[in-house]
Amino acid sequence: MSTSTIALAIEKQMVLENGVQQVELLNGVEDSYGGIILNMEEPMESEAFVYSLRASISQWKQQGKRGVWIKLPIQLVNLVEPSVKEGFRYHHAEPDYIMLVNWIGNSTNTIPENASHRVGIGAFVTNDQREVLVVQENNGTFKGKGVWKFPTGVVNEGEDICMAAIREVKEETGIDTEFVEILAFRQSHKSFFTKSDLFFVCMLRPLSFDIQKQETEIEAAQWMSINEYAAQPFIQKHNGFSSVANVCLAKLEKDYAGFSRIPTTTASGKTSYVYFNSRDLSKL
Amino acid sequence: MSTSTIALAIEKQMVLENGVQQVELLNGVEDSYGGIILNMEEPMESEAFVYSLRASISQWKQQGKRGVWIKLPIQLVNLVEPSVKEGFRYHHAEPDYIMLVNWIGNSTNTIPENASHRVGIGAFVTNDQREVLVVQENNGTFKGKGVWKFPTGVVNEGEDICMAAIREVKEETGIDTEFVEILAFRQSHKSFFTKSDLFFVCMLRPLSFDIQKQETEIEAAQWMSINEYAAQPFIQKHNGFSSVANVCLAKLEKDYAGFSRIPTTTASGKTSYVYFNSRDLSKL
Repeated sequence: MSTSTIALAIEKQMVLENGVQQVELLNGVEDSYGGIILNMEEPMESEAFVYSLRASISQWKQQGKRGVWIKLPIQLVNLVEPSVKEGFRYHHAEPDYIMLVNWIGNSTNTIPENASHRVGIGAFVTNDQREVLVVQENNGTFKGKGVWKFPTGVVNEGEDICMAAIREVKEETGIDTEFVEILAFRQSHKSFFTKSDLFFVCMLRPLSFDIQKQETEIEAAQWMSINEYAAQPFIQKHNGFSSVANVCLAKLEKDYAGFSRIPTTTASGKTSYVYFNSRDLSKL
Repeated sequence: MSTSTIALAIEKQMVLENGVQQVELLNGVEDSYGGIILNMEEPMESEAFVYSLRASISQWKQQGKRGVWIKLPIQLVNLVEPSVKEGFRYHHAEPDYIMLVNWIGNSTNTIPENASHRVGIGAFVTNDQREVLVVQENNGTFKGKGVWKFPTGVVNEGEDICMAAIREVKEETGIDTEFVEILAFRQSHKSFFTKSDLFFVCMLRPLSFDIQKQETEIEAAQWMSINEYAAQPFIQKHNGFSSVANVCLAKLEKDYAGFSRIPTTTASGKTSYVYFNSRDLSKL
């Protein structure tokens, strides 16, 4: 950056106010934790951004602000390097934006952790003939191995686990279902770079029975005897799979209670599902 | 970037091989999904990087590669903008690095989703006198409200839920515990920007009883009658809290079965815990 470029950048940022020239401050929004969120939306030259950022942070420090967040849409990628050089660190990123953060307070840094887990579901759908809905996949670990498995999928950000299970079964097999219970779940680590994984086995009740398999991801789909499913060598070989199969058999053959759901309201007024053993809770 | 800068950059990347000048290729590692992972570690000029990246991608396309990942430590922030201008998108970021990705294959994009959930725990620890271990916090939503709550905390990336509960209780109160069961869990959304949240209520058995409270985060800690805990106006007012309190009371007073854990081995050979209702599974 040449001296003349800097001078030009400063000049562009000058505004006349009561006859005094000032650097234009960035328009941050206060959060409820004594912090500032900068939602950068309009294109800006790196040099002008740096001068405005320095002036803004100076003011926020005087105001006793603590965490400063900068959200940069990917179109403003030119502002990532200057932000880092001004002391910001990455916090998280999605395909179309990056969030940076800097702790400018004197107290202990209380910047919250980034999301650490991906969440998946496996759907246990049975009909009255003790048959379970199973698929073979076109991609991934099980491709071409002849393994019949439950429909599975990833729970989206903002999606309820119970709804994700219903959606995935519909997408992969065309079967309509309703949610019954979560029978079990598994937590595993380093499933995706350093991230961890939570996988919920959901029991669903079928509301339709004619399979319309999805073309691109699903090689085959069918109703299969639950005993035949559980007897597959692949299932028997891995106790992660066989223990889940045993839980599903227990649900059909014994009085197994999983976790069902109730809608609740959180302290901040949002609706969210709590999952627990409602059968045991309702005992006298 | 001036023409002479480009020429210099190209020249610096030239290597003589069998008398032919070539741009140096980047050293990517193949992943198991037909992709390439570039772990950039050494500093590099942006211009040189762009030429090497173009040449490398050209070769990877010929080899039928599909997803190309670039991991950039924060020290190499100068390579973020050139990567985006070459067609890469953000995938995720942690404080000290950003991961970018580009799908160069002809088939459907199967880039996996980013982590979507944060995971937290609340610890239900009771002694023989029907007392529960509770704290008041120095920070956050409950600061200064006089609410007694279970010790809570965030599950780290790579940490087991059961272990996180034991760790948080030890950190906040000094009490040693062992894991018993997960009694319930709650899923909520937009708890942190767009990210979702899973909160597990873990029952722990105390192995010690003398409280040594943590200084910076915890205002006060004590053993409190479970009925007194559940009767707090704040708990009664929010059914998210009261339903959890009811589950905990049911655990003490009725025959309530939560989910206990067994270690299992996944298809890829990793150890991970499966959580389920082991009491019902062991029924005849």
